[in-house]
Amino acid sequence: MRAARGKVAVFGAGSWGTAFSVVLADAGNDVTIWARREEVAETINDRRENSEYLPGIELPQQVSATHDVEKAAHGADLVVLATPSQSLRVNLTEWAPHIEPGSVLVSLMKGVELGTLDRMSQVIGEVTGAGPDRIAVVSGPNLAKEIAKREPAASVVACAVEDVARQVQQRIHSPAFRPYTSPDVLGCELGGAYKNVVALSVGMAVGLGFGDNTTASVITRGLAETARLATALGANPLTLMGLAGLGDLVATCSSPLSRNRTFGEKLGRGMTTDEILATTRQVAEGAKSCSSLLALAERTGVDAPIAEHVDAVVAGRMTAPEMMDAFIARDTKSETE
Amino acid sequence: MRAARGKVAVFGAGSWGTAFSVVLADAGNDVTIWARREEVAETINDRRENSEYLPGIELPQQVSATHDVEKAAHGADLVVLATPSQSLRVNLTEWAPHIEPGSVLVSLMKGVELGTLDRMSQVIGEVTGAGPDRIAVVSGPNLAKEIAKREPAASVVACAVEDVARQVQQRIHSPAFRPYTSPDVLGCELGGAYKNVVALSVGMAVGLGFGDNTTASVITRGLAETARLATALGANPLTLMGLAGLGDLVATCSSPLSRNRTFGEKLGRGMTTDEILATTRQVAEGAKSCSSLLALAERTGVDAPIAEHVDAVVAGRMTAPEMMDAFIARDTKSETE
Repeated sequence: MRAARGKVAVFGAGSWGTAFSVVLADAGNDVTIWARREEVAETINDRRENSEYLPGIELPQQVSATHDVEKAAHGADLVVLATPSQSLRVNLTEWAPHIEPGSVLVSLMKGVELGTLDRMSQVIGEVTGAGPDRIAVVSGPNLAKEIAKREPAASVVACAVEDVARQVQQRIHSPAFRPYTSPDVLGCELGGAYKNVVALSVGMAVGLGFGDNTTASVITRGLAETARLATALGANPLTLMGLAGLGDLVATCSSPLSRNRTFGEKLGRGMTTDEILATTRQVAEGAKSCSSLLALAERTGVDAPIAEHVDAVVAGRMTAPEMMDAFIARDTKSETE
Repeated sequence: MRAARGKVAVFGAGSWGTAFSVVLADAGNDVTIWARREEVAETINDRRENSEYLPGIELPQQVSATHDVEKAAHGADLVVLATPSQSLRVNLTEWAPHIEPGSVLVSLMKGVELGTLDRMSQVIGEVTGAGPDRIAVVSGPNLAKEIAKREPAASVVACAVEDVARQVQQRIHSPAFRPYTSPDVLGCELGGAYKNVVALSVGMAVGLGFGDNTTASVITRGLAETARLATALGANPLTLMGLAGLGDLVATCSSPLSRNRTFGEKLGRGMTTDEILATTRQVAEGAKSCSSLLALAERTGVDAPIAEHVDAVVAGRMTAPEMMDAFIARDTKSETE
């Protein structure tokens, strides 16, 4: 990746992929979004709007869309991946032959793969053969709709190789979007994945009628649980205290726009996972990743009560009131015990 | 302090002092609230409600009120202090002769004294001569109105002497209120004081129309600033990650009930400090403590841009939009630099 500006392929026309395309265009890039469904690509090109996943946002002229993988990837030295986490491996396997050699792959995804327990950067490396110098992660307090409206926001670009992190930083730095570099890919990915699980539990508390004291306690213990697992796996604890940890968690848990919080609220009001899934097309990553994160915690020997309880509620083995009772009753004498 | 249950004096009939009296009564204590104004004490006794500062909450029979200092303090082995921070010294000097020798003094206050830069526990020690074994602090995500409604909440009881922390814990543990012990008095006090300043800046962002991404970024950098100062002064960083740091901060910044956030919102909408003060009787602690915290940071040699900017806006030397511009523009290459 040499040019300060160039062509970027964005794989995934969901709300975050589309909003990030606005950032990329504002930062001076030519952007081609690949959409899984042809009609979504057509709407973007015809109406300059992704009316299904990001309605009401006019997309810049530098953004176009296609359903053709080869066309999307051709000439792109920056490839942004924004699909649901659990379908990355199968999708990327199909895209990989078309991706330019030497291009940098940027993950916007926040999940952990079921079964393998791989983080998204690991899936990218395995499928494409790209080394750590070609894989970056962008994560932070970045609610898609606010980003698309160009409200000021900060984020983290993590890559094991500092020079590459800086190159990506330059390519995605727009007037409203301020990326900071970090070497801690693992910390950013775990912060991003875990926050969806914590947002589910915050949503449950809200759905059950609890107030700000309770949700703040859930957030506090949720971040402690995230930091415990992430640092046990080698992350820098400061990453979890930063934009991709605390920042992302607070934005997601505060926002009525958050899918995971909304999903949790519905669980809190007594709906089952199947009932909720029947009402929405959008994916709540946390409802899938909770079991991967729980398995990762078990494999690592780390206590993860929030992931455990969220997983049980999502799977229908526990009710939301039972989960909150367990949360409140947890007996501890000193805060850090 | 020997008895598991006994008489508690609560000095201060504001919303937090009154709500905490509900906790104390639920935990089995007899509570006497001292009110600065006689009519407030009378209303509490006659109507079982503090209609001015905590309207709509029926106070338990074990709570009574008085304007008489001697009557309030007599026989109380636990003395809870809940006055505005800046008037503690002058008030406590008057109360001290009536306080029972050997009683434990519990601070609910979240501020740093102007001029001396003393924390509230330090003021208590200086005025009463009580040692660290007689001074405790209670702090956490505890919005008064939710506590008074008996919504489940957790908090931290900090005392340098663990046994005393545990005694206080037992005395304030009610079915809805769960206190955890901690030895870190300084960390709890700085977390509590600083969160008011951060809440002011979050309020300003909200008043200026910014969304959840921005407020989450302000909270993230605010906690980093708090932790930087607190740990430089000797606090345990985990305290700031816990209920009295992150928890209290998130509850305060999320809640439309928070006085400091509301004060900040008004500043964000262009009102001056004098104009805001003319519209409310309640005190926004952060509007006073920001200059003490800034002075403390300067004395300690720690960078404190949020306290600095909040202080400038409160004092009218900077506008809220200028503050947000400074916040957004801050140039940093790597997140932890």
